[in-house]
Amino acid sequence: MLSNSRAKIQRVLIVGATHGNEFVGAYLIKKLRKHPEYVRRSTFETLTLLANPQAFAKARRYVDTDLNRCFRYQDLQDLTRFTYEEIRAREINEIFGKNGKTPADVIFDLHTTTANMGLTVIIYPYSFNLQLAAYLQQMNPLVKVLILPETEQGYSGLPSICGWGCTIEIGAVAPGVLQAEPFQQTERLLDHALDYVERCQSQDELPSLAHRLTIYQQVGAIDYPRNVAGEIQAMIHPKLQFRDYEPLHPGDPVFLSFDGDVITYTGDSTIYPIFINEAAYYEKGNAMILAQKQKLELSSVPKGKF
Amino acid sequence: MLSNSRAKIQRVLIVGATHGNEFVGAYLIKKLRKHPEYVRRSTFETLTLLANPQAFAKARRYVDTDLNRCFRYQDLQDLTRFTYEEIRAREINEIFGKNGKTPADVIFDLHTTTANMGLTVIIYPYSFNLQLAAYLQQMNPLVKVLILPETEQGYSGLPSICGWGCTIEIGAVAPGVLQAEPFQQTERLLDHALDYVERCQSQDELPSLAHRLTIYQQVGAIDYPRNVAGEIQAMIHPKLQFRDYEPLHPGDPVFLSFDGDVITYTGDSTIYPIFINEAAYYEKGNAMILAQKQKLELSSVPKGKF
Repeated sequence: MLSNSRAKIQRVLIVGATHGNEFVGAYLIKKLRKHPEYVRRSTFETLTLLANPQAFAKARRYVDTDLNRCFRYQDLQDLTRFTYEEIRAREINEIFGKNGKTPADVIFDLHTTTANMGLTVIIYPYSFNLQLAAYLQQMNPLVKVLILPETEQGYSGLPSICGWGCTIEIGAVAPGVLQAEPFQQTERLLDHALDYVERCQSQDELPSLAHRLTIYQQVGAIDYPRNVAGEIQAMIHPKLQFRDYEPLHPGDPVFLSFDGDVITYTGDSTIYPIFINEAAYYEKGNAMILAQKQKLELSSVPKGKF
Repeated sequence: MLSNSRAKIQRVLIVGATHGNEFVGAYLIKKLRKHPEYVRRSTFETLTLLANPQAFAKARRYVDTDLNRCFRYQDLQDLTRFTYEEIRAREINEIFGKNGKTPADVIFDLHTTTANMGLTVIIYPYSFNLQLAAYLQQMNPLVKVLILPETEQGYSGLPSICGWGCTIEIGAVAPGVLQAEPFQQTERLLDHALDYVERCQSQDELPSLAHRLTIYQQVGAIDYPRNVAGEIQAMIHPKLQFRDYEPLHPGDPVFLSFDGDVITYTGDSTIYPIFINEAAYYEKGNAMILAQKQKLELSSVPKGKF
C-alpha cells in the first residue's frame, strides 16, 4: 500500500492498441499524443504507448499471437520466442519493465470488448490497485471491478510488467469500430485514475475516500458446447446475451443449441457471468467467465498482496 | 417480372460466410446442412454454400481481398486474378453462375453489420427483387429495403452472378460473434423469402399481396475526416451513432473531432444515413452511405429493370 511503502510514483504509462482492433484505446493514445496536456500531472511523468502498431494497421487483434498473453516473467526471458508479438513484448518490457530504460510505476491499459461489460476495471489484487479501483467506483458508481485469479505461471497481461494500475475495459463495442461514447467514458475514467495517482503523491496519507468496494472475483470459465471436431453447437441464450454482471441462478438458460435445446446452468449456487460472448475468446475456448460477487472492506485488506 | 417471364425457378442458393467473420450466416448454413428440411420446398431445390471457408476458419472478413467485391462479370473472366478470393469467386461462378454446373435462379446471401440497421434487404433493382422485398416488408414491417446504385462496371457482390434474390443484412452485430436473436431473425426472414419463391411458382399470377414498398436508394457515401496521412481525425458523433435510417437534416451533427469540434451535415436537404460506422468500411473510406427514402407503387414499376 502506498501509504506504507511511500514509493514515489515517477512515471505512469497509458497503453492503447495492445489489441490492434480495439480502436477506442488506439485512437485515445493518438489523441493524447496530440494533446499531452490532458494527461499531464504535477508529480509524475505520463507516457503513452501504442502497443501493437502492426496489428492496429491491419485492424486485427494480433498479427501472430495475442500480445496480452506474452508478458509472463518466464516467457519474457525466453529468447527463443520469436513471433512479432513475443518480440514486441520483450521490447516493451525492456523500455517500461522494472529493469527497463524508463520503468513504468503504474500502467493503464485501454481495451474494449464485445461483451456488455460497461466500464470495467480489471486488476491484479494488490492493495494499491484495490484502493485505486475503490476510488474509481466512488467517482463513477457504474464502474465494475473484476479481479483476476493468479495462475501458477503468473500473470501474462501487459500491465503485469509493473503490477500497479489496471486494464480499463469497455463494452459492448465491436472490434474495428471507433465509438464516441465509450471513447469519452474511457477518457473520463482515465482522468480520474490519473487524479488518484496525483492525490496519492501529494498527501502524507492515501486519500481516505473509499472504504468499501464491490468486486467480482473470477472463479472459472465455460466454453461453448462443441462437437468432437470442435465446432460450436449452441449459441449464448438470448436471455443471457448482454447480461454481464447479472446473477445467473441454477436452472437459468445459458445456451440455445442449433437443434433448439435450452442448456441451463447446473451449478448449485448463484454466479455472475462476465465477458459473455466476447469475440476474441471463441479461439480461447471461453463463452464467458464466471465470477463471485463480493463486498470488500478495504481496511481489512492485508498490506501488500490481497 | 415472374408473372410475365414465367421462368421456372429450379434452384435457390442460400449463402453464408461470404465474409468469414459474419458468424450469423456462417452458423445458419451449418445448421441448415444438418437440418435441410427447414429450407426444403416442393417446387425448387434449395442448396447452401459456405462461401469463404478459409476466412471463416480465421474469423476474418477475408484472407486476401473482399470476396463480395469479386463478382463483376469482367473480373470473373480475368484469369490473371489469382488471390484466394478471386479464385474462389470463379469457382463459385463456375458452379452457381448462369453458365455453371448447377446455376442458381435465386440467391439469398446472409450478412451482419456493426451498424444498427436491424433487418435489411439489399437488392439490385429488378422487379422480381422489388416484389420479394415488398413481400418481406409486409411479413415484417421492420424490414428495411436498400437499393444499390448500378455502377458503370456493374455489380460486384456475390448475388450478382444470378441477379434475383437479395443480401440479408442484420445489425448491430459485432464481427466474430454468433448472436442468437439476429440469428433467429435472419432465419425467419429467410423462411418468408423461400415461401415467397414457392408462392410465385405455385400460382398463375404473382401473389398480389404487397402493392407499396418503402425503399432507401443509395445516392452517395462519406468518409471519416482524415489528415494528409489518411489518419482518422474524428468519430461518428454520439448523436448519430446507431441512428441508421433516421433522417439527417442540414446542420445536424455528423462527426466529433478529437479536438472537440462538431462537424455538421452541410447538404441542403434531408438524407438518410445507413451503414453508419461499419467496421469493414473504414478501409473502403466510408463512414456511412447516404440514401433517399422513397415510397414505390409496385404497379408503376416497369417490367424487367427498375
